[in-house]
Amino acid sequence: MDATARIEQCLEAILARAETPGSPPKLAAALRYAVFPGGARVRPRLCLAVAHACGDDQPGLADAAAASIELLHCSSLVHDDLPCFDDAALRRGKPSVHMAFGEPLAVLAGDALIVMAFECLAAAAGSAPHRLPSLLSKIAGSVGMPHGIVAGQAWECEPEVELAKYHREKTGSLFAAATEAGALAAGQSPDPWRRLGECIGEAYQVADDLHDLLGKAADIGKPSGQDAAHHRPSACSLGIEGASRRLKGLMKEALESIPACPGSDELRAIILAESTRFVPKDLAQLAA
Amino acid sequence: MDATARIEQCLEAILARAETPGSPPKLAAALRYAVFPGGARVRPRLCLAVAHACGDDQPGLADAAAASIELLHCSSLVHDDLPCFDDAALRRGKPSVHMAFGEPLAVLAGDALIVMAFECLAAAAGSAPHRLPSLLSKIAGSVGMPHGIVAGQAWECEPEVELAKYHREKTGSLFAAATEAGALAAGQSPDPWRRLGECIGEAYQVADDLHDLLGKAADIGKPSGQDAAHHRPSACSLGIEGASRRLKGLMKEALESIPACPGSDELRAIILAESTRFVPKDLAQLAA
Repeated sequence: MDATARIEQCLEAILARAETPGSPPKLAAALRYAVFPGGARVRPRLCLAVAHACGDDQPGLADAAAASIELLHCSSLVHDDLPCFDDAALRRGKPSVHMAFGEPLAVLAGDALIVMAFECLAAAAGSAPHRLPSLLSKIAGSVGMPHGIVAGQAWECEPEVELAKYHREKTGSLFAAATEAGALAAGQSPDPWRRLGECIGEAYQVADDLHDLLGKAADIGKPSGQDAAHHRPSACSLGIEGASRRLKGLMKEALESIPACPGSDELRAIILAESTRFVPKDLAQLAA
Repeated sequence: MDATARIEQCLEAILARAETPGSPPKLAAALRYAVFPGGARVRPRLCLAVAHACGDDQPGLADAAAASIELLHCSSLVHDDLPCFDDAALRRGKPSVHMAFGEPLAVLAGDALIVMAFECLAAAAGSAPHRLPSLLSKIAGSVGMPHGIVAGQAWECEPEVELAKYHREKTGSLFAAATEAGALAAGQSPDPWRRLGECIGEAYQVADDLHDLLGKAADIGKPSGQDAAHHRPSACSLGIEGASRRLKGLMKEALESIPACPGSDELRAIILAESTRFVPKDLAQLAA
């Protein structure tokens, strides 16, 4: 089974458990709406690619790690779109969760997705319980305090923000966790894989900022110009040319950081293909 | 060390980890504000009491289970108080988190507390990793979908609600998890302890509904009359006398459900003392 099929099947199984008879139907529907259809699933694909390069001897645990990371990403999107943050009407080309289901169900859906993310790790750890503490700590650290997604988001409430730190926490941390979790799920040390995730995460953020600056809402499935509208820090303070140069450098560093391992050639090919997915043609040309 | 000191010390250590230099200071402050000073800490005390009755051979894991449950409880209070739910200005006798820190930080604080709850379990599981999957599953199930706290809260968004189910999910589930997690942290089967948690949880909810109906805001540290104001299901539909009778029956059943074990007498005494804490004198007299 290819990575995309593994990810969608695992997410489907997790969502189905929340839809048992007797569960509140609107929240169950909001959860499915927040997770399907997905975006590019970049983070879980990266997680499975590293697990594969590391031998993938516990594929159920790797699938759960990948799904857990995607659920946490979806949760952050649902809460980021709330009126008290971005007040975004669109996400992935359709109304955001609070627009479709109302604000109470959007808050609850984000909460439920966080819980489901950790629950699915526990459910998959039966055959390798000794891997669960480090895997869970790594993933939790990437979304919580003091340096995960919520910390990154919280910098928007502070008078002074360091751009690199803000991006590292709000976006980079979950990418780094994706590569590290892939290694941990396969019983390998996460450290050699951290830089790969960090580079791809930062590249993704720079590309997203360029999209936001240059893109049209219809192209990116959400409103454009949001960074400027919300006075958010953006890599575009480097200028379009500077940001494009940064993007190119990061992708090069990502590829060079891949440790020597049996699956390294395959992983390199996956990452090259992935980079053309999240960096559309016109931006890739700018970066070339 | 007594149970209260163990709980406060464990919560303090977890909060301190979120307050490292370089963490966003307002969110760090909001987290501390949401957790300290606490309420009666009924759930974590119950968890430690059961762990003690079960031998408490991994006290660090029991402490983490108790703290995890309290963090999840605090998170649910922060999010329940938000303008889109109860819009409550007061909690535990002081301004609610969103009143003190604003809505964005209240949303993030609730999210961060959920993550910290699971992270602290993982951090404490090093010496007994095989206990982590079931412990984490039990606690996560009590707050997530389909039958945990968020499910209970989501019934407020549905046109029809079954009162018993609503209370079982919104309040009872975390009490049941508290007793079951105490047993699991000590390496024992959770099943014999479930009914104890369920009974105390339901009793607590009935007492809370009576408080809300009869109490003054100053006595209970939060606005009274909220159930009626928000058209929420309440045990007071049974009438004050019916609800008081129910409370008495539940405390009797709770005490009778305690399995035969070395610490059962001590546990019984703790629960009797606890019940006078959460049922104030005038209500206890009504229930007597």
